[in-house]
Amino acid sequence: MDLTELESQARDKLGQGVYDYIAGGSDDEVTLDDNVAAWGRIRLRPRILRDVATVDTSTTLLGTPLGAPLAIAPSAFHQLLDPEGEAATARGAAAAEALMVLSSRCSIPPAQVAAAAPGSPRWFQVYVWGDRQVTADLVTEAAESGYSALVLTADTPVLGNRRRDERNAFKPGRAVMADRLDGPGRANALESYLSPKQDPSVTFDDIGWLHELTGLPVVVKGVLRGDDAVRSVEAGAAAVMVSNHGGRQLDGAVATADALREVVDAVGDRTEVYVDGGIRSGTAMVKALAMGARACMVARPVAWGLAVGGADGVTSVLSSLRADLVLAMRLAGAANLAECSPDLLAG
Amino acid sequence: MDLTELESQARDKLGQGVYDYIAGGSDDEVTLDDNVAAWGRIRLRPRILRDVATVDTSTTLLGTPLGAPLAIAPSAFHQLLDPEGEAATARGAAAAEALMVLSSRCSIPPAQVAAAAPGSPRWFQVYVWGDRQVTADLVTEAAESGYSALVLTADTPVLGNRRRDERNAFKPGRAVMADRLDGPGRANALESYLSPKQDPSVTFDDIGWLHELTGLPVVVKGVLRGDDAVRSVEAGAAAVMVSNHGGRQLDGAVATADALREVVDAVGDRTEVYVDGGIRSGTAMVKALAMGARACMVARPVAWGLAVGGADGVTSVLSSLRADLVLAMRLAGAANLAECSPDLLAG
Amino acid sequence: MDLTELESQARDKLGQGVYDYIAGGSDDEVTLDDNVAAWGRIRLRPRILRDVATVDTSTTLLGTPLGAPLAIAPSAFHQLLDPEGEAATARGAAAAEALMVLSSRCSIPPAQVAAAAPGSPRWFQVYVWGDRQVTADLVTEAAESGYSALVLTADTPVLGNRRRDERNAFKPGRAVMADRLDGPGRANALESYLSPKQDPSVTFDDIGWLHELTGLPVVVKGVLRGDDAVRSVEAGAAAVMVSNHGGRQLDGAVATADALREVVDAVGDRTEVYVDGGIRSGTAMVKALAMGARACMVARPVAWGLAVGGADGVTSVLSSLRADLVLAMRLAGAANLAECSPDLLAG
Amino acid sequence: MDLTELESQARDKLGQGVYDYIAGGSDDEVTLDDNVAAWGRIRLRPRILRDVATVDTSTTLLGTPLGAPLAIAPSAFHQLLDPEGEAATARGAAAAEALMVLSSRCSIPPAQVAAAAPGSPRWFQVYVWGDRQVTADLVTEAAESGYSALVLTADTPVLGNRRRDERNAFKPGRAVMADRLDGPGRANALESYLSPKQDPSVTFDDIGWLHELTGLPVVVKGVLRGDDAVRSVEAGAAAVMVSNHGGRQLDGAVATADALREVVDAVGDRTEVYVDGGIRSGTAMVKALAMGARACMVARPVAWGLAVGGADGVTSVLSSLRADLVLAMRLAGAANLAECSPDLLAG
Repeated sequence: MDLTELESQARDKLGQGVYDYIAGGSDDEVTLDDNVAAWGRIRLRPRILRDVATVDTSTTLLGTPLGAPLAIAPSAFHQLLDPEGEAATARGAAAAEALMVLSSRCSIPPAQVAAAAPGSPRWFQVYVWGDRQVTADLVTEAAESGYSALVLTADTPVLGNRRRDERNAFKPGRAVMADRLDGPGRANALESYLSPKQDPSVTFDDIGWLHELTGLPVVVKGVLRGDDAVRSVEAGAAAVMVSNHGGRQLDGAVATADALREVVDAVGDRTEVYVDGGIRSGTAMVKALAMGARACMVARPVAWGLAVGGADGVTSVLSSLRADLVLAMRLAGAANLAECSPDLLAG
Repeated sequence: MDLTELESQARDKLGQGVYDYIAGGSDDEVTLDDNVAAWGRIRLRPRILRDVATVDTSTTLLGTPLGAPLAIAPSAFHQLLDPEGEAATARGAAAAEALMVLSSRCSIPPAQVAAAAPGSPRWFQVYVWGDRQVTADLVTEAAESGYSALVLTADTPVLGNRRRDERNAFKPGRAVMADRLDGPGRANALESYLSPKQDPSVTFDDIGWLHELTGLPVVVKGVLRGDDAVRSVEAGAAAVMVSNHGGRQLDGAVATADALREVVDAVGDRTEVYVDGGIRSGTAMVKALAMGARACMVARPVAWGLAVGGADGVTSVLSSLRADLVLAMRLAGAANLAECSPDLLAG
Repeated sequence: MDLTELESQARDKLGQGVYDYIAGGSDDEVTLDDNVAAWGRIRLRPRILRDVATVDTSTTLLGTPLGAPLAIAPSAFHQLLDPEGEAATARGAAAAEALMVLSSRCSIPPAQVAAAAPGSPRWFQVYVWGDRQVTADLVTEAAESGYSALVLTADTPVLGNRRRDERNAFKPGRAVMADRLDGPGRANALESYLSPKQDPSVTFDDIGWLHELTGLPVVVKGVLRGDDAVRSVEAGAAAVMVSNHGGRQLDGAVATADALREVVDAVGDRTEVYVDGGIRSGTAMVKALAMGARACMVARPVAWGLAVGGADGVTSVLSSLRADLVLAMRLAGAANLAECSPDLLAG
Repeated sequence: MDLTELESQARDKLGQGVYDYIAGGSDDEVTLDDNVAAWGRIRLRPRILRDVATVDTSTTLLGTPLGAPLAIAPSAFHQLLDPEGEAATARGAAAAEALMVLSSRCSIPPAQVAAAAPGSPRWFQVYVWGDRQVTADLVTEAAESGYSALVLTADTPVLGNRRRDERNAFKPGRAVMADRLDGPGRANALESYLSPKQDPSVTFDDIGWLHELTGLPVVVKGVLRGDDAVRSVEAGAAAVMVSNHGGRQLDGAVATADALREVVDAVGDRTEVYVDGGIRSGTAMVKALAMGARACMVARPVAWGLAVGGADGVTSVLSSLRADLVLAMRLAGAANLAECSPDLLAG
């Protein structure tokens, strides 16, 4: 699947405002671009003459078995992309047997998303708002709806400066969350969900707070440094996710491909490490796995698939990436994920 | 604020000659371009999960308290940009609570600039002309008008070769200094001020001479080497400023972002180090601070603000940069300037 | 000879589908482009004042004497380029006194190619298909037709993803192998030859199998790592060829110029090392030889020559490259291949 | 002086064939471009607060006093550029007080060039042709005409492949040497001069031969390696010149800026080292001097000056470069050539 062509189709369908809201990054978009470029800079050292008749990409994330080390990274307001919103995304993910991480800023209630794909693995992304009860209510609801891990976004004490949205005067409004209005106390919480203002005083201590609220394992997302990865683990994180929020927060932050090794080296075998940011191909996934990532997550390609083809579009993107991973592993001489080892990386 | 857009508006308003006089650099403009590019090459390692609810950017420069480590670097002839010249700049700086360094080649007398923003912090930039009395008179006048430090421009024994000005046949004339004609002996001094010919025999000894003339601390501006920074300090400088004159003097000189660390390492805690050149964003400021700069200075963005919006335009640029610094610090996990430490820098 | 101009002529003559089939690489064509760029990044340290009146480029490959260390790398279906297919290529190679490696996917039977240039050195490239008997029959036929070595393509357990062919809906059909239909059992084998599906379970053990089938020396093609080169030699390979299949298999694989030294260092004097990928000039050949390659192979330039000028076009390309090598050696101060030593390489 | 603008004027005046003959390089022109780019990659560390009221650029080359370390590198057939040919160049050089190195392939006889600027310093460039007597006669004539050193071009056993000349079908003919027809035996020698075929068997031994023929010091031009510099000196060279023939011989050869340090380090104080190739500014000259070059030579800028303005054009280019050197030294804080020391170089 040609993801560039898919993105182009999505752009035509969505219009500039929504397209830019999803495609854009912060400030000069240095990190946005570098995320993709950094994977491209890495060279592979493929092995030859290995038996790759059968390729096994199966793995587990926090104990959840998955057919491939690939998941949907959280992103906001899927009703901007499809009338069914995250329900469609969830059905598409289920058909591709992929894990979906639902955003706190989903267009439809987490329970409704869960109901759309009841048997599928799902995690829930968490922002901590100034009114902590809003967050507590939300994660409790998520836990009750079968989300099996919380993904704490740790790189967003405040929102980065998105010039495209300024230029387009684009601001996702109440409409994209209309379906979340009908619960008790929801009208108030909605203001929190819609507001770009999270609580800027969230610290490592809140990892424990989230865990205690729900008993769910907590993944810390947004880690770009070894020391922060270690602190996350020490504070109770079950896993860390190397991410710079798709280049949407601190512009000039290191590309995830360039931060991954430091994080893996720092945490060793103590915890699982995931990565997102600029991953658009099976070869990028092989590179990430070879650097020690346990799984890769993607958001924008899934958004383009959803916009162009609804649930089927989501499935198509995920299946295509998974097939592309299998092909890249075969061509690299790796028959399973353990064989995606550091010696595949040049230089 | 989109500084590129602001510059474009300024260009339309000013016309090519004046625009190029300010925007241009020397020779092939290698250093002009590299100043901006060098900040862009640096990658940041943001911290997560720090309490950045409150961000404190306050500091002191040579004992003068400032709300943020941001000042206006000296530039000549502000009446090219606004009829009120440096008086408007000073009012704009005052409203933004920023330090202004007034150029020796100001369009209106230093005292008049001081009167426009009486309570604000102000320093005075010094060229040493062949007729030293001209310089002596000027700095004495500045001292009497409440300028609290002298900034000796040390990289301009002669003027660099500005091809744009040659091409445009642009030469700022007497008009841009008309307001400085009315003091005793001023008509003669004016020739010095307007002349691009400084005294090419100025040495480190003149730091002491300037200090003795006025009792004011002397900042040496134009330092790009550790050894010169040390010699400046040993000769009595109270601070040094890493600068290549905005890429307008020796073309091919090292970018300030690339020279800063060497200078900081050489002087250690003995003196304050400032930096200018290519700083256009909060993230560049965080990078400079993390490398050990005590403050950043900007000239061209202020000029575009002055051209487009007068004093208000100046305020707007400075306030925007300050807000951008606060945002970048938050996203980098730094709640105060001490936390803008070297570990924020990758590689 | 201006190879860029020749390629442009070939493109005009062949049309987009065939042109892209030959010119294209896999995925984003990163490795395709990097193959050429990597030779260009290397700088030479030419020697002066050497007697280069006579330059001797003669060598042997696996004992076969050659006038120059230059051979035709295998490529498929030459009837796409010329009605006479590989017979024309073989005649062109013979006239240039160059070794030709015939592809398993030749348009006309190996014996017929041999008959077109009976006295010329020729090797046979091998794919291993799922039905091993097909391969066994084929290499036996090749051995009987005087092909003196087998070149096992080791980087193609499955085919890489060629976007250009997808976009063009290009698939070489039965027509390009029509001349191979008339042997016993050929109709069935043809399905294998045409299929892009090789056996993905080929391993180092198959080197011995191929050797035993024919008694011919086996060259392993597609080596990009020192350890794989050593394993190839230990498994009985007579030589290894550094190749990434012209950027058509694993995209992001290291450029051959960047992999060559590692392979040469690993095998030392135990075996001959050849290289292909992006070699378009005498200076690239000098670089390859200086890094320790015993010979260079080219495919696409030969294809363009065949398309534009038939057998004469092939001769012309090969003769031109050979003359270009002699010129580059003279200008580098190397009178023979031994003097193409590592000290010619900068950095 | 804007050399880019001058070149553009020359191009308009000369037409494509002659322009390309001078501007072009060999093959892909990698080295041609890299010569200029390599100086541009180097960054300077200017000194401040030095007394640069007086800047002394005087030096000696092989004992000949010069006002500045700048000379005209040899280039062929100046009657392509100006009807008076090298006589005009010589007069222009004399007016600028610069050393001129006359090419063996001059359009008018060496004695006539000497007569055009009798008091000026001049050296003579030597090709060794197959008929050594032709060379012997030529250098003897040069010695008798007051040329005080021989510059042996050592990088041209054969001519590089100049694609532009091929494309333009450009070949300088007898006309550009018509004035050299009238000496005894000249008609025969002319064939040698015009032929691009030098003797490819010239070696280090010929340095001594040239010296014995004339008693003149021999400069070896075309050195790009430390070991060759040492061998030149050991074979009797009085100086070496780092050059890659303006990117016209081995394409991919290291840029002169990148080879200079190795050569300087290898010969130490034993001999003078000059450099040409891509030097277009005072800052490039300061970089070369800081790396240890005793002088810089330029050819193409002089050609453009000659084409556009005759002798005056030559003077203008040389004077402009000299003034540019003085300016760059002032801005770098170097009052004389000894102060153009390695500490001016960054990195």
